Amino acid sequence: MYSVTVRDHMMIAHSFKGEVFGPAQRLHGATYVVDVEMARAELDANGIVVDIGRAGDALKRILADINFRNLDEVPAFSGRNTTTEFLARYVFDAMVLAMDRGDLGPDAIGVERMKVTLHESHVASAAYEGRIAPRG
Amino acid sequence: MYSVTVRDHMMIAHSFKGEVFGPAQRLHGATYVVDVEMARAELDANGIVVDIGRAGDALKRILADINFRNLDEVPAFSGRNTTTEFLARYVFDAMVLAMDRGDLGPDAIGVERMKVTLHESHVASAAYEGRIAPRG
Amino acid sequence: MYSVTVRDHMMIAHSFKGEVFGPAQRLHGATYVVDVEMARAELDANGIVVDIGRAGDALKRILADINFRNLDEVPAFSGRNTTTEFLARYVFDAMVLAMDRGDLGPDAIGVERMKVTLHESHVASAAYEGRIAPRG
Amino acid sequence: MYSVTVRDHMMIAHSFKGEVFGPAQRLHGATYVVDVEMARAELDANGIVVDIGRAGDALKRILADINFRNLDEVPAFSGRNTTTEFLARYVFDAMVLAMDRGDLGPDAIGVERMKVTLHESHVASAAYEGRIAPRG
Amino acid sequence: MYSVTVRDHMMIAHSFKGEVFGPAQRLHGATYVVDVEMARAELDANGIVVDIGRAGDALKRILADINFRNLDEVPAFSGRNTTTEFLARYVFDAMVLAMDRGDLGPDAIGVERMKVTLHESHVASAAYEGRIAPRG
Amino acid sequence: MYSVTVRDHMMIAHSFKGEVFGPAQRLHGATYVVDVEMARAELDANGIVVDIGRAGDALKRILADINFRNLDEVPAFSGRNTTTEFLARYVFDAMVLAMDRGDLGPDAIGVERMKVTLHESHVASAAYEGRIAPRG
Repeated sequence: MYSVTVRDHMMIAHSFKGEVFGPAQRLHGATYVVDVEMARAELDANGIVVDIGRAGDALKRILADINFRNLDEVPAFSGRNTTTEFLARYVFDAMVLAMDRGDLGPDAIGVERMKVTLHESHVASAAYEGRIAPRG
Repeated sequence: MYSVTVRDHMMIAHSFKGEVFGPAQRLHGATYVVDVEMARAELDANGIVVDIGRAGDALKRILADINFRNLDEVPAFSGRNTTTEFLARYVFDAMVLAMDRGDLGPDAIGVERMKVTLHESHVASAAYEGRIAPRG
Repeated sequence: MYSVTVRDHMMIAHSFKGEVFGPAQRLHGATYVVDVEMARAELDANGIVVDIGRAGDALKRILADINFRNLDEVPAFSGRNTTTEFLARYVFDAMVLAMDRGDLGPDAIGVERMKVTLHESHVASAAYEGRIAPRG
Repeated sequence: MYSVTVRDHMMIAHSFKGEVFGPAQRLHGATYVVDVEMARAELDANGIVVDIGRAGDALKRILADINFRNLDEVPAFSGRNTTTEFLARYVFDAMVLAMDRGDLGPDAIGVERMKVTLHESHVASAAYEGRIAPRG
Repeated sequence: MYSVTVRDHMMIAHSFKGEVFGPAQRLHGATYVVDVEMARAELDANGIVVDIGRAGDALKRILADINFRNLDEVPAFSGRNTTTEFLARYVFDAMVLAMDRGDLGPDAIGVERMKVTLHESHVASAAYEGRIAPRG
Repeated sequence: MYSVTVRDHMMIAHSFKGEVFGPAQRLHGATYVVDVEMARAELDANGIVVDIGRAGDALKRILADINFRNLDEVPAFSGRNTTTEFLARYVFDAMVLAMDRGDLGPDAIGVERMKVTLHESHVASAAYEGRIAPRG
């Protein structure tokens, strides 16, 4: 299995509902350094998993939608705790949509698995990983 | 699959038996930066894999048992080489016990897989990874 | 010159006033990984710059005052842009106060210089550095 | 599953063929920080996955073959794009050969899986991962 | 003294002349992860050292001039060893020019010191640091 | 001012005397990741601060003297707390001796300042920095 990973980041505000979150129930914020790892069994004709330039651009657009925002006020997240785990899944789903739209080029259809990791500090991170093939 | 990872560290002394270890047969030591990644298929009702605060506290207690010690004198490790691999498994088993005791809260029973990685320097690490479900 | 550095982090929300900040004028947030480096010409009688345990505890208390908060609502910051640079200075001043109060032990009076660095992502940080001696 | 990871690096020049590569079609270069993770179900009699000293030496020899070279002029790579993904597989295959030759010692035959990751910058990496057992 | 640091990278090919360079006399390459730290005594009216967005853009343009190139063929470097140290100074001088042109905004004239660090691997880096004030 | 930095590591056991050290009074250990930064005003005729290969070899030899040892039993350290700060100075002094012996080549006499940093974990480090010129 071959894979490539691209990294970017976003800086957001949010708050959580539920006693388990303690002081994080208050409005606070986070920098999320985001790694997207895309994997497939065989390389394409150019010898790559996916066009890393396009993959980085797609990730930047996805993060731009919620970057520098208070996620408590983003309608798509209404009634949800925008935990690191939840946001990892959000980025995962958005990357699949971007691939399906062709944003990463025609060969990106070969990507079979993806793992999205959000580092929230030097001591904590969360991820969502899953199969995405067969697509198209 | 969703996952969260928490990080802490310990500083121990030990020595190894066996020619394969070369100079590490002498009494020496290590800082182990420890990452514990816990994974499950679905998030709990709060939108998390596990209470990251409790998970960090549990890890700190586990490491405190052997932190600032000469592992050659810890009865539980008698006759064993406390290699980085071995210690990764030790922390793994201790984290499973902590979950079973309820130290990470009732929802931690949903954790299905765990990977414990010990970084011993900027150029070497070891890990133990395994399924832990079904439990309880 | 000897120095020791301790690291901790905080997760806050805030917004900035001024066109130069672009989208960061909106309410957003950040994780700040904070490094405090304390330096002095000679070590104390124990062979250390400062009690690293106490230094870490002092830093944690200072960060706890503003951790998991919306800095736009912290009275002490009223009318100020809580930029990374500004917060580096805030932590610097708070650490000097902690030393003067004796929170880092009597020998901490020997610390002559300090640098506080706040990493806001994998690609950006800010710092405040200055002399703090003579004190007491 | 237990694993150990060793790290080294190489510094090479190369160019790519194909419009997808944009400016990387020009002769340029890269530092690749290389992580080799080797995994097996059970530890050997010494309590290790593999002799980490020998593993590091084997990796250093493999990288030395192409280190400080223009990969466009390496006969073995003729007609191929030496992408990060491609080179991850190259190192993977060379490590399997080294194990089969006994370079990592007799117990290395127990290694069942391997993942080779090449970090090309602070924001991009590629990897090849696969099963290597049963061997011998 | 306040400072801000921005990070970017470039991937180049080159070779060195001189026995001291050993195998690096051959055409090879490097990824340079570049940190630019800019310092001044007082913050500007916005509470910042410099517009970090503009600083990052200026750095990206400077690196783009030589990114994905064989530095042996860049006329400006003719007859020079493009060592990591040399390139740190090259980026330093180019950043000063960018500030003097106003690329970082009018307040960047307040920057008094700068340090440019190029990380060439996980185990080696080089830097150039100097005063740049008074300017304008 | 130009500088170059090389990195290596050592793994040692030791204990401290003094209540300030708490549990670190027990025999324990540490991995020290060691950075040596050497600085000078002008580059030598080859365009470098110092031969980075020789500098790395010198550092490795210095660390080898105490690597994989219990520092409590090293005669040179008798009666001293081998704190991270103390060891930073030890490596500093040993590097100066190596330069004076010519181990880093004749041009290393140009080095004017040096900073030795020992990272003991992901959250703590210590350093010693000083002028070393004029020498010879």
